[in-house]
Amino acid sequence: MKLWAHRFAKEMSDEAFQFSASLHFDRRLWEHDLRGSIAHAKMLGKCGIIPQSEAKKIIAGLKEIAREIKVALDNHQDPFNPQSEDIHTEIEQRLIEKIGETAGMLHTARSRNDQVALDVRLYLRAACDELAQELQNLQISLLKQAEAHLKKETVLPGYTHRQHAQPVLLAHHLLAYFWKLQRDRERIADCRKRINISPLGAAALAGTSFPIDPGMTARELGFDGAFENSMDAVSDRDFAAEFLAAAAICMTHLSSFASELVLWSSTEFDFVRLDDAWCTGSSIMPQKRNPDMAELVNGKAGRVFGHLVGLLAMLKGLPLTYNRDLQEDKEALFDAHDTLRDCLRVMTGMLETAVFQHDKMLAAAQQNPFLAATEVADYLARKGVPFRQAHGLTVEIVRYCEKNKKTLTNLSLKDWQTFSPLIKADIKERLSPKNVVTAKSSKGGTAPAQVKKGLDRAK
Amino acid sequence: MKLWAHRFAKEMSDEAFQFSASLHFDRRLWEHDLRGSIAHAKMLGKCGIIPQSEAKKIIAGLKEIAREIKVALDNHQDPFNPQSEDIHTEIEQRLIEKIGETAGMLHTARSRNDQVALDVRLYLRAACDELAQELQNLQISLLKQAEAHLKKETVLPGYTHRQHAQPVLLAHHLLAYFWKLQRDRERIADCRKRINISPLGAAALAGTSFPIDPGMTARELGFDGAFENSMDAVSDRDFAAEFLAAAAICMTHLSSFASELVLWSSTEFDFVRLDDAWCTGSSIMPQKRNPDMAELVNGKAGRVFGHLVGLLAMLKGLPLTYNRDLQEDKEALFDAHDTLRDCLRVMTGMLETAVFQHDKMLAAAQQNPFLAATEVADYLARKGVPFRQAHGLTVEIVRYCEKNKKTLTNLSLKDWQTFSPLIKADIKERLSPKNVVTAKSSKGGTAPAQVKKGLDRAK
Amino acid sequence: MKLWAHRFAKEMSDEAFQFSASLHFDRRLWEHDLRGSIAHAKMLGKCGIIPQSEAKKIIAGLKEIAREIKVALDNHQDPFNPQSEDIHTEIEQRLIEKIGETAGMLHTARSRNDQVALDVRLYLRAACDELAQELQNLQISLLKQAEAHLKKETVLPGYTHRQHAQPVLLAHHLLAYFWKLQRDRERIADCRKRINISPLGAAALAGTSFPIDPGMTARELGFDGAFENSMDAVSDRDFAAEFLAAAAICMTHLSSFASELVLWSSTEFDFVRLDDAWCTGSSIMPQKRNPDMAELVNGKAGRVFGHLVGLLAMLKGLPLTYNRDLQEDKEALFDAHDTLRDCLRVMTGMLETAVFQHDKMLAAAQQNPFLAATEVADYLARKGVPFRQAHGLTVEIVRYCEKNKKTLTNLSLKDWQTFSPLIKADIKERLSPKNVVTAKSSKGGTAPAQVKKGLDRAK
Amino acid sequence: MKLWAHRFAKEMSDEAFQFSASLHFDRRLWEHDLRGSIAHAKMLGKCGIIPQSEAKKIIAGLKEIAREIKVALDNHQDPFNPQSEDIHTEIEQRLIEKIGETAGMLHTARSRNDQVALDVRLYLRAACDELAQELQNLQISLLKQAEAHLKKETVLPGYTHRQHAQPVLLAHHLLAYFWKLQRDRERIADCRKRINISPLGAAALAGTSFPIDPGMTARELGFDGAFENSMDAVSDRDFAAEFLAAAAICMTHLSSFASELVLWSSTEFDFVRLDDAWCTGSSIMPQKRNPDMAELVNGKAGRVFGHLVGLLAMLKGLPLTYNRDLQEDKEALFDAHDTLRDCLRVMTGMLETAVFQHDKMLAAAQQNPFLAATEVADYLARKGVPFRQAHGLTVEIVRYCEKNKKTLTNLSLKDWQTFSPLIKADIKERLSPKNVVTAKSSKGGTAPAQVKKGLDRAK
Repeated sequence: MKLWAHRFAKEMSDEAFQFSASLHFDRRLWEHDLRGSIAHAKMLGKCGIIPQSEAKKIIAGLKEIAREIKVALDNHQDPFNPQSEDIHTEIEQRLIEKIGETAGMLHTARSRNDQVALDVRLYLRAACDELAQELQNLQISLLKQAEAHLKKETVLPGYTHRQHAQPVLLAHHLLAYFWKLQRDRERIADCRKRINISPLGAAALAGTSFPIDPGMTARELGFDGAFENSMDAVSDRDFAAEFLAAAAICMTHLSSFASELVLWSSTEFDFVRLDDAWCTGSSIMPQKRNPDMAELVNGKAGRVFGHLVGLLAMLKGLPLTYNRDLQEDKEALFDAHDTLRDCLRVMTGMLETAVFQHDKMLAAAQQNPFLAATEVADYLARKGVPFRQAHGLTVEIVRYCEKNKKTLTNLSLKDWQTFSPLIKADIKERLSPKNVVTAKSSKGGTAPAQVKKGLDRAK
Repeated sequence: MKLWAHRFAKEMSDEAFQFSASLHFDRRLWEHDLRGSIAHAKMLGKCGIIPQSEAKKIIAGLKEIAREIKVALDNHQDPFNPQSEDIHTEIEQRLIEKIGETAGMLHTARSRNDQVALDVRLYLRAACDELAQELQNLQISLLKQAEAHLKKETVLPGYTHRQHAQPVLLAHHLLAYFWKLQRDRERIADCRKRINISPLGAAALAGTSFPIDPGMTARELGFDGAFENSMDAVSDRDFAAEFLAAAAICMTHLSSFASELVLWSSTEFDFVRLDDAWCTGSSIMPQKRNPDMAELVNGKAGRVFGHLVGLLAMLKGLPLTYNRDLQEDKEALFDAHDTLRDCLRVMTGMLETAVFQHDKMLAAAQQNPFLAATEVADYLARKGVPFRQAHGLTVEIVRYCEKNKKTLTNLSLKDWQTFSPLIKADIKERLSPKNVVTAKSSKGGTAPAQVKKGLDRAK
Repeated sequence: MKLWAHRFAKEMSDEAFQFSASLHFDRRLWEHDLRGSIAHAKMLGKCGIIPQSEAKKIIAGLKEIAREIKVALDNHQDPFNPQSEDIHTEIEQRLIEKIGETAGMLHTARSRNDQVALDVRLYLRAACDELAQELQNLQISLLKQAEAHLKKETVLPGYTHRQHAQPVLLAHHLLAYFWKLQRDRERIADCRKRINISPLGAAALAGTSFPIDPGMTARELGFDGAFENSMDAVSDRDFAAEFLAAAAICMTHLSSFASELVLWSSTEFDFVRLDDAWCTGSSIMPQKRNPDMAELVNGKAGRVFGHLVGLLAMLKGLPLTYNRDLQEDKEALFDAHDTLRDCLRVMTGMLETAVFQHDKMLAAAQQNPFLAATEVADYLARKGVPFRQAHGLTVEIVRYCEKNKKTLTNLSLKDWQTFSPLIKADIKERLSPKNVVTAKSSKGGTAPAQVKKGLDRAK
Repeated sequence: MKLWAHRFAKEMSDEAFQFSASLHFDRRLWEHDLRGSIAHAKMLGKCGIIPQSEAKKIIAGLKEIAREIKVALDNHQDPFNPQSEDIHTEIEQRLIEKIGETAGMLHTARSRNDQVALDVRLYLRAACDELAQELQNLQISLLKQAEAHLKKETVLPGYTHRQHAQPVLLAHHLLAYFWKLQRDRERIADCRKRINISPLGAAALAGTSFPIDPGMTARELGFDGAFENSMDAVSDRDFAAEFLAAAAICMTHLSSFASELVLWSSTEFDFVRLDDAWCTGSSIMPQKRNPDMAELVNGKAGRVFGHLVGLLAMLKGLPLTYNRDLQEDKEALFDAHDTLRDCLRVMTGMLETAVFQHDKMLAAAQQNPFLAATEVADYLARKGVPFRQAHGLTVEIVRYCEKNKKTLTNLSLKDWQTFSPLIKADIKERLSPKNVVTAKSSKGGTAPAQVKKGLDRAK
């Protein structure tokens, strides 16, 4: 079951076969492999490289194989022969069984070197489309929660350095993730451009002496165009590294969001209640409600980073054209795709059913005695005090409060004016979380009107 | 020299200061920081947030500081005060010394959180432009060598699995790298789009209550637009990760090319002579001529991968807005930029002066007794033998030759016809490396006419 | 089939279950899990925490389950219920089916948190032992080849910077790998010490109120001792990171050796012929003999680096005790173990059957006109010329030869003496590869006598 | 200023020099380089390879150079010539200036290949010793805080999945880190064994024809022994990778502890107050007290992972002996050493001055209505209910409480007995955090008596 078996006097050792066979993971390329072969056969026929009649026979055979595999898979049967070296061999072998010697014409002007590159590109193109959809689904969930909480004007403490900083709208907070995911979609779209180039026709490395038409197969398979240089075409795995990098960056976003859900589910924060359907309990502690799905999303980020590193290390220093090292690209790609897709789905499911705790968030914002401190400095700056001095003055006010166990909201006007006569009675009304939020009305800021605009742009 | 020093009863410990200070590396942002501050001051004045007169004073002061720093650097003097926490503090402090209290107005409606994001974006935008230029320079070198060797029709063995596979043109081989670098340029251009968004106006995290115009500063600084969401704007380091990923992928290309130059400089290959100016000798072995520059390029790929991993690990699970962890982005970015730029320059310098050994390459192609074997199979396939059988037949021919110490070029016609009566006398002329190369005339293939077309497109 | 299912009003969502279930990979822990449970039950009985009779019933049940699983696996049947969340649940559930309510006693004073840590440690301990054996097998192969080629005094050019440097014995070259692998064994042994500590008895995180004896279970399971601190015990995955680091370092050795076999299999070097049983052919190029196994070993190094990075990134910033992120440790460990073991076996198989080309190596060493240049410098230094000057003088000699197309071996005595009158007729005999090799008789050097000693120590 | 400059007709290009020169970072090896050279010269003299008188002259010269460099550094002057290629060349050059031609004898029987390996090993050995000390300092800080809080019996909620799980002693919690650091020390000690082997005498790659005594220099320099095989000795960087791996694992511990300090500094937790001397403020928000040092420790973990990855990728596939790629080891090692040392010091400084909030912790433990739930299940199990059923019963109790807004502490005995008649009045006293803690008295558990024992073992 090896395309080159007759080359050698001796059989390949079993250990070598087990070590190098790839059917157990490249089987998932079957549909792409068949599609590529059909396009190739069609082109061979059209260009007169093989007789049209034979091309048709081949295509019919391949289509039948596709049907058979589908049926087997639908019936949870294994459609493949484990003795095959890889999915390409498996399918060629089946074609021989089905249509006999004519099958041998399919590999004209083609090598596994361009064939495998083709299959991986077809696979990844579909993966990009699927991920774009999943990203959009998560974005829609974010928009829904943001919209609902914009209506309620849910306010929570905004944090920097994980410390209370300034009050913000929950809707604003959630939309921050929306825009991160938007960039993920852009990155995947940019990567897709570079994926969507057909390598078919590069043959082993040098092109071929048959009068093939790489443009025709490229069009047939929905590519934007064909390769420029055959030696580049069979060695190029840039698109794989770029895909993994885009996936890794997206995982940093998901891990941040997931970590936040974990933190917000803690007793200390209690800002969100995840739905029972997305929590787990404990085998020993009867009271536990654990946010395991979110923890796993966080944990799985490392896995995707690992795939990226592994691929880069594999590519480093590799010569042009095909080297067997390249076989290592696939498991990394497949697992990164699965992982990212599953994480996106899980995040969407969790978010859709999560209940953010409006009252707890507001209480946290209100209890903090100094969350409005920046507003005090801004107030002074608006009255003409240079900001740096206004900041200094406010620091003094804060330290005074700390020392005397006061808060910005229970300081008397007299107290205020000890620090600056510019401070008037209107200072008080400015310091509630809601009013601070409303004041941050610069473009892209957290004021409800701005967040509304951002939400509309997001839609 | 800390913008917040008066906040605390106690001085920061020396160890904490040393540990967290960043002036020794973020000093390279000085020009970007000044440019950003000038734009910010202009906007504050235009929008009436600070008096126009004060804005002008600030701008004049900043411009003077820029001049002073430039003069100091030109004279190899250290322009900065090592007691400053970071470059932003250093410059604000100098402005205070220069124009007094008015300087305190510059920080109105701005935080270091948006300021540092701005500076890094300005820096990386310039880095992208520089790298695009360096990539182009290396591409031009490749084109020149390719053009020269296309004229000479320099042929060498093409390799797959590092084994002789089929003869190719050196020009074709070199152009493969051209196209890889072309994708690197595209990736950097795509990354630049996402870098070129201004974060200024996000302030600490929530926007500001001053009536700022983030669009104005964005235009002033040449950005494509301003941020959408303030909490995203101060936390977004996607562009940094994407930049490092693009750099890492480019390093895989350079490491492959550099490894090849090392290999080709070996006694066994002797396909290239690197110029003395780009080689080193040995402290102990008097005869050595070492391709150290190429080895270093290969070695430095790992370094850039490391920066990428480091950044991703840092970003993983990080909450929104600014966390001090983010300070770790800069050294990685700076070193990756320097490393990639230097590697590109060194590769260009090496390539420009390298002498590829036409005769050695041709000899290697000619000596290999089976380099034309694919051509034999193709020959048979063209006569109607299904390719798989043609391949099998050729394997038999090769094994016959190996057994009988013959080569494809010294087989008699009678010998040939033992294997298939379809083989005619014209088989012989088809098997010279040059003719095999010429035959591979499919689009993107190694035939001179195709390579010429590729070269023209590349230009 | 979840140990905590009754905790919630709602069923876990299917997506959450699929996302978090681990049976498809932690099933390979079944034997370790059973062994751990048997030890735990025995201890519970001995300590009077559960009745001895019940302990016996539990142990009998567990042993029967072990037998059943073994039988199923031997018959290629799936012994596990895919609805089980993980292997621990699966086994507890089976025990309930088998012995009823008593099974519920097994989880007394134990949590999955200490149970899973136990299983992974038992697994890795066995993995270390297996890898130590595989490393030894490869070392033995190296010794055999080294011994055979020491007898033949096979000489080849030694390289630095991949350039001919000084002649060396092939035996010496091969033994260099022996010592690298020896350090790998030491690292694995050191790691095993830290693996071999029992975490059982830490329970969920805090220990337990039952009068357990962690020392007893530790002894029962062959551990060197039990944990010191329960919160550390359930969170500690240092041993996993250390194992992956040791595996990654070992993979750098294997990748270097494998890369060399690839290079030496090239037409240009032709220093080794790999056996047909360890090579592959091409689907398109009939003449190819590709060293795919060695390429794959090289390619798989990146994969193991990736697992290490993934684990470190996962562990970064993780709180004490158990977090679900930790579930991500297992697939990385299992795959790294499999990969390293398979690579070791493949390298051993390839090496045992490889034929190193004595004559080609010698010819390469002899053809190089300057391989003995260091010897000339040393010759002069021995006559009292300071080495730095001797080196300079030899450089002049080499440059003279290059200019005049001469070699060190065909320079006349008169030529020699132009450079230094200290050079006598005995210079000639010193410059053959064999004599240069013999001269390097310092400890650990390449002279046959030294290599013999090294070989004896290695044994 | 290159040891091989006369080898070539042409000068090295400036770009190549800048690209490859290493003095700007390997200068920190100066002391180790001098020490190594002194030992080498002594051995050359003792073994009669160079005259004793010359050896003495060389040694005196080297010692004087050491003094000069020290004086310059103490006076903040740059002692080195930037035109030198590396620190080895710099020092040899200075020796020539100082003692003339005799200096040329120092490089007898030595290459930069073994010299640089020696210097790095000497450096790392010292780094290991320093880090062991810093680790111990941090452990001592942990012990002090643990001891103080053991006396106060400070109780806090223990967490799993970042959710309240069971109450624990703060002392127990802190000691968990102690044991993690203890393993870090062991790993560094194990790594040091493999560092502490002298490579001196391997020369370029093959040993030397001079009658050197590698054992003598090894002893002189405090090594445990000398290398076994010269080709291994100059290529071995295992110890560097192992050092980086140990550093990376240690950084996971520090990042976990640092993340916890950040979290505990939040308003929501408020479990610790970091001293002003270890906090920073904000340039815009006057009230902020940010735990920047702890954030940076967390952020810097990624950096060390990056160095490890970079080194592994560099080593992958590298041939035996010296290749210039290896030069890339040093910056990674130096920065990892600096980073880890600084992080350890900062953590120690922060911890020594941190004030853990006994009352806040206790309140958190007491407010949680179900922190004692495991104890209820254990109570039932002790009365003979199989644990799995006891767990199920307790889940019912918890759900009953949740539904009826009750807690375990305010359930009436009648309520309790609805669930099981086995429950008696003594249940109540068992459920206070202190009593739950005291009950976990298994070895390594959180009961005060056990923690006391752990503390004593730790000391």
